[in-house]
Amino acid sequence: MALVVQKYGGSSVADASCIKRVAQRIVATKKAGNDVVVIVSAMGDTTDELLDLAEQVSPLPPGRELDMLLTSGERISMALLAMAIANLGHEARSFTGSQAGVITDSTHGKARIIDVTPGRIQEAIAQGHIAIVAGFQGVSQNTKDITTLGRGGSDTTAVALAAALDADVCEIYTDVDGIFTADPRIVPPARKIPRISYDEMMEMAACGAKILHLRCVEYARRFDLPIHVRSSFSTKEGTWVVSDPYTEGTEMEQPIISGVAHDRSEAKITVVGVPDKVGEAAFIFKTLADAEINIDMIVQNVSAAATGRTDISFTLPAADAQTALSALKKIQERIGFESLLFDDQIGKVSLIGAGMRSHPGVTATFFAAIADAGVNIEMISTSEIRISVVVEQDGVDAAVAAAHRAFDLDADQVEATVYGGTGR
Amino acid sequence: MALVVQKYGGSSVADASCIKRVAQRIVATKKAGNDVVVIVSAMGDTTDELLDLAEQVSPLPPGRELDMLLTSGERISMALLAMAIANLGHEARSFTGSQAGVITDSTHGKARIIDVTPGRIQEAIAQGHIAIVAGFQGVSQNTKDITTLGRGGSDTTAVALAAALDADVCEIYTDVDGIFTADPRIVPPARKIPRISYDEMMEMAACGAKILHLRCVEYARRFDLPIHVRSSFSTKEGTWVVSDPYTEGTEMEQPIISGVAHDRSEAKITVVGVPDKVGEAAFIFKTLADAEINIDMIVQNVSAAATGRTDISFTLPAADAQTALSALKKIQERIGFESLLFDDQIGKVSLIGAGMRSHPGVTATFFAAIADAGVNIEMISTSEIRISVVVEQDGVDAAVAAAHRAFDLDADQVEATVYGGTGR
Repeated sequence: MALVVQKYGGSSVADASCIKRVAQRIVATKKAGNDVVVIVSAMGDTTDELLDLAEQVSPLPPGRELDMLLTSGERISMALLAMAIANLGHEARSFTGSQAGVITDSTHGKARIIDVTPGRIQEAIAQGHIAIVAGFQGVSQNTKDITTLGRGGSDTTAVALAAALDADVCEIYTDVDGIFTADPRIVPPARKIPRISYDEMMEMAACGAKILHLRCVEYARRFDLPIHVRSSFSTKEGTWVVSDPYTEGTEMEQPIISGVAHDRSEAKITVVGVPDKVGEAAFIFKTLADAEINIDMIVQNVSAAATGRTDISFTLPAADAQTALSALKKIQERIGFESLLFDDQIGKVSLIGAGMRSHPGVTATFFAAIADAGVNIEMISTSEIRISVVVEQDGVDAAVAAAHRAFDLDADQVEATVYGGTGR
Repeated sequence: MALVVQKYGGSSVADASCIKRVAQRIVATKKAGNDVVVIVSAMGDTTDELLDLAEQVSPLPPGRELDMLLTSGERISMALLAMAIANLGHEARSFTGSQAGVITDSTHGKARIIDVTPGRIQEAIAQGHIAIVAGFQGVSQNTKDITTLGRGGSDTTAVALAAALDADVCEIYTDVDGIFTADPRIVPPARKIPRISYDEMMEMAACGAKILHLRCVEYARRFDLPIHVRSSFSTKEGTWVVSDPYTEGTEMEQPIISGVAHDRSEAKITVVGVPDKVGEAAFIFKTLADAEINIDMIVQNVSAAATGRTDISFTLPAADAQTALSALKKIQERIGFESLLFDDQIGKVSLIGAGMRSHPGVTATFFAAIADAGVNIEMISTSEIRISVVVEQDGVDAAVAAAHRAFDLDADQVEATVYGGTGR
C-alpha cells in the first residue's frame, strides 16, 4: 500500500462534471489499495472572478484581505470534490490549508511555507478517509492570518504536504500528458519526456516551461520526492521528475539534451553608458532588488577604452519593467549613465540537458541551428546544464524548432497536441 | 465611546456598490467615536448558487462538506467589506467564525453556539481596527470542523458576539425600517414599532414576522442585550428590542397590542379517530419528534362518547409535512387511528401584545374582527401575550387587516412600503 498525493489544477475541476470525473479517478486510486491525499486548486476562472470583485471594491486591496478573499476559491472546489467522492460511497474530508497544517511566513500574496504539521491529515488517512486539501493557501505562523503562496502555489502545497507525509509519489495532474521536449504547439514532433532530473526540470521551469513551477521542483529536490506529471484526461504514464532518472534501471542512455524551452514573458532593459567604475553594477542591481524585481539574464559588454563606459543589459519579467525603469531613472544622476533602452519584443530560447556537461560542441550546434533559421542572437547566458539565448520575439518559434531538430529530439509521431500552463 | 456591533444581511452587501455603501456607514459609526464590530452575511444569491453547485455534484452532500462549501460565501463578502473600508482609509480586519471564536456543537447545517471566545476580535478593537466577522458560521468544539448555524444564523452570530464582547448595542441592518405592527404589504397603514420587549418580539418571530429570527432574540434576552433593527438604506431610528420597553422614560403608555403577525408557511395534519387512551398522543408526538419535526400548534377535540375516539390536529412547517405523514403512517396500525387529513392551504394569524395580560376582552375583539371579515377560524392557540388562529390561506390578508384595524393599530400615514424577510 502506497501513500499517493495527487494535485488537480483549476482546469481539472472547472465545473461539476469535471469534479465528478476527478472524484472517480481519486476513488480508483483508493480502490487500488492506496492511501490518497488530494490537493485541489480553485475551479476554472474563480480566482479571476474574485480578483475582479476585489477591483470593483478597492483599487489597492490589503494583502491580508485579498488572501482571505482568494482562499474561498479552493474552499468551494475542495468541498464539492469531497461531496462528489462521498457520492461514490467513499469517505472524504476536506481541509483548508490552515487545517492541513500548512504554516507560512506572513508575506501575503506570496507566502513561503516554513513548516507543515499535517496531524489532521494523518488522522484522516488513519481512519481510511480520503483527505482533500486546499492548495495555494496556508496560515501565517506569527499572526495566524490566512496567506496564499502565489504562483504555482498549489503544486508547492502538494509537494510540501507529500514530503511532510513521507508520501511515495506526488502526482501533478494537468491538461497535457507530461513534460515535452518542446512546446508541441510550436514543435509538433515534440516528444513526451519519460523521466527527467530535478536539476533539468528546474532549468526548464525557470526557462519558461509552465507545467511545473520552479518552487515546487526545488521543494521536491530538497526532500527527494518523486513527482509524476500526468494528464487528468488519460491514464497514460506522464513524466517522472526524480533525482537521477538515468540510473534507476532505465533502458536508454542519458540524452545530451532533454528539451528546448522558451519564454515570451520577459523584457530587456539596457543601461547605456555606465561609467566603468567598481561598484556601479552592484548599485544598479541593489536598486532593482530593493524594488523586489527578479532579474533573469545579465550581460555586460567590455567597456570601450575610448569612453571608459560600458552598457549593461538584463532581462526581467515584462510585468515588472515599468517599476524597474522608474527605479533606474531615480539613480541616473548618481550613477551617471547616459540612457535607458527598453525592449519587450524579445523571447528567450533555452536548451536544457544534463548530458551537455560531457558533450563539447553543444553550444556551437545550438548557435548554428539558430543562425541557419535566420534568427539573430541578442544575449547569451549559460549554466552547466543550460544555454539560453535572447532573440527577437518573432524569431522564437523558428529558433525553438531548429534547435529541437538539430539535437534529434523530433519524434516519429505526435503524442500530444495541447500544451498549456497551470494557473496556480 | 460605545462598542457597537452591526450586522448586515445579504441584500445589504449584494454587490460591489452595496458593499461600498455599507463600508461608508461603518466608517461613519467609527468616526463618531465608537468601536465597531461588523457581522456580515454572504452576498445576495451566493448561498443559493453554492447550493446549486452542490446539487450538481451530489444529491445528498455530507453536512460537514456542505458547511465547508457554504462558509465560503461570508468569506468573500467579509474580505470585500474589509477592502472597501481600507479604501476609505480605515483599518479593517476580517475574521472567519472560527477565528472570531464562535464555538458550536457538531450539528452541521444547524449548529448551536456553545461558547464565544472573541480574543482576536478584542485584540483588533484594542488596536483601533474595525473587525469584520463572518456571520452564520462557527467551529465545532470537538471535531474542530467548520459548522453553520442554519436559518437566522448571522443574526445569532451578531447577538452572541455582542453579548461576549459586552457591546452596548447590536444593530441589525435590513432592507426595511424596523419591525411593523403588521406586514405593510398587507396592511398599508401599518406603523413602525419604536420599542418592543424581547418576549413580544419572540412571539412575533415565532408567528411569522421574518425580520428577526427567534434564536437571536432568545439569545439577546438571555444576555439583556439591546437590539436595534434598522434599515441600511436610511439613518432613521428603527425598532429597539429591549427587556422592558415601557419603563425607560418613554412617552407613551403600554399598548395593548404590539402587532399582528401572519405565517403562510405552515400546513395542518389531522390524525382522525385516535383511540382515547392514555399515552396515544404522547406516542404520536414522540414519533414526530424522533423524525426531527417541529410541531407548532396542537388541538385535540373532546372525544366523542359514542366512539371513544378523538381527532388530533397540529400545524408544522409545510416543508416537513411529507416526512411527518410518512412517520405517522408507519405507526397507524400500532396506534389504531382511522386516517390522516392534510391541508397546506392554511395561514396563521397572531395577535401579540404584552398589554393583553391586563386587558380582558382582547380575544373576543380579535375573533369578532375576523368573523366580521368573513373568515372562518379553524384552530386556536394562546399564550399569555399572544393569540393565534389558523384560517384558510385565502383569508389571511383580510383577517390581518381586520385585526389591525380593530386594535387601533392603523397609522395616519404610511411609513414604509417594503416588508421583506432576512435570509440568514
